[in-house]
Amino acid sequence: MSGRSYPPRGQRWVPAATVSPVTTIEVRTGARQELLDVTDAVAAAVRELGVDDGAVLAFVPHTTAAVTVNEGYDPDVAADVGRWLADRIPRDEGYAHAEGNSDSHIKAILVGSSELLPVAGGRLVLGRWQRVFFCEFDGPRTRELRVSAV
Amino acid sequence: MSGRSYPPRGQRWVPAATVSPVTTIEVRTGARQELLDVTDAVAAAVRELGVDDGAVLAFVPHTTAAVTVNEGYDPDVAADVGRWLADRIPRDEGYAHAEGNSDSHIKAILVGSSELLPVAGGRLVLGRWQRVFFCEFDGPRTRELRVSAV
Amino acid sequence: MSGRSYPPRGQRWVPAATVSPVTTIEVRTGARQELLDVTDAVAAAVRELGVDDGAVLAFVPHTTAAVTVNEGYDPDVAADVGRWLADRIPRDEGYAHAEGNSDSHIKAILVGSSELLPVAGGRLVLGRWQRVFFCEFDGPRTRELRVSAV
Repeated sequence: MSGRSYPPRGQRWVPAATVSPVTTIEVRTGARQELLDVTDAVAAAVRELGVDDGAVLAFVPHTTAAVTVNEGYDPDVAADVGRWLADRIPRDEGYAHAEGNSDSHIKAILVGSSELLPVAGGRLVLGRWQRVFFCEFDGPRTRELRVSAV
Repeated sequence: MSGRSYPPRGQRWVPAATVSPVTTIEVRTGARQELLDVTDAVAAAVRELGVDDGAVLAFVPHTTAAVTVNEGYDPDVAADVGRWLADRIPRDEGYAHAEGNSDSHIKAILVGSSELLPVAGGRLVLGRWQRVFFCEFDGPRTRELRVSAV
Repeated sequence: MSGRSYPPRGQRWVPAATVSPVTTIEVRTGARQELLDVTDAVAAAVRELGVDDGAVLAFVPHTTAAVTVNEGYDPDVAADVGRWLADRIPRDEGYAHAEGNSDSHIKAILVGSSELLPVAGGRLVLGRWQRVFFCEFDGPRTRELRVSAV
């Protein structure tokens, strides 16, 4: 299988390393904390995996990033979510971990590193306002989101 | 497949729209924030789907509601959980989102919009004190909880 | 199937009660709140279940414990996560639930009682720094982590 790159540059997707039956979406984030709508890339991965009915697992193989499902219509929602997280889980709070990103780990645990997404008729079946967000909590970095059949 | 309505009115369940192989549970909530025990409806959906061993996905297709598994024996637990959420994620905090329900979106993300529930011998297999809760964070509304085989 | 005990005492694992196709890992915790790296036990369960490709469900059948995936290399990360949880979700806050462990229930809901973990080629496939943690929030106790094919 081939991979997917997000966000698009020039052409919409670029290949990334994958192993069957997993499709790896490459996600390039642009800030320390950022919620990126990756729904189109996940939907493409579902088609590529050939999953017809059931579910796909969207898995973040990092410890300072996460994935979630929420509203994508009004970008203010993601902004408000990000602001609450940044305010309640401050970057500097006398943490022990020397890398200075304990807040990123805490955010990743609370939001969660995977989502199981329903598929029917070969398509991702989300609610009307739902979108899939890759959540960067220690960027900017080049990240992976792995989508696989279960 | 047919659907399920919760909570019961008159007869225990009423039909709701579904598509195979998904059973849609209709959930009518009665307050802005409410944790409703929907275990019996999910167990009925497992039987209806005919899942024998493995797991079912309980998926909330909304962006201001969630699903979780926790204690259902003492209703004070759900009340305490609700109070903590309402206190730590206040309704009014100068959010950008104009609809005035950013707190609902934040709660939904932290609690999570799906649960994968183990099934064995055709039955939902939870721990002794565990129950499945539909979590309303922007009600009262008529909601859906979609249960599907994976 | 046989079970697994964690942490090791004398020999690495001891049998625990299980039913096919579930492998039950017995987890003995040593404090009220503790994040225990159970990755090796989960990896052994994957081999025992004979799952080749797809995913396994790691499910906590308790209401005051959880499971998560995060960094295991530096133990300070788990310590910082634990400290944030203990600080933001205090043990005593005038909760209604008479058992005095409402904080444990809240933590369990936010962290989550299950993880779906990707498997490929018969092995658990996590990111480079990812480990699976059993999260005790009302210990010390003897707990279960149930691993099953989905």
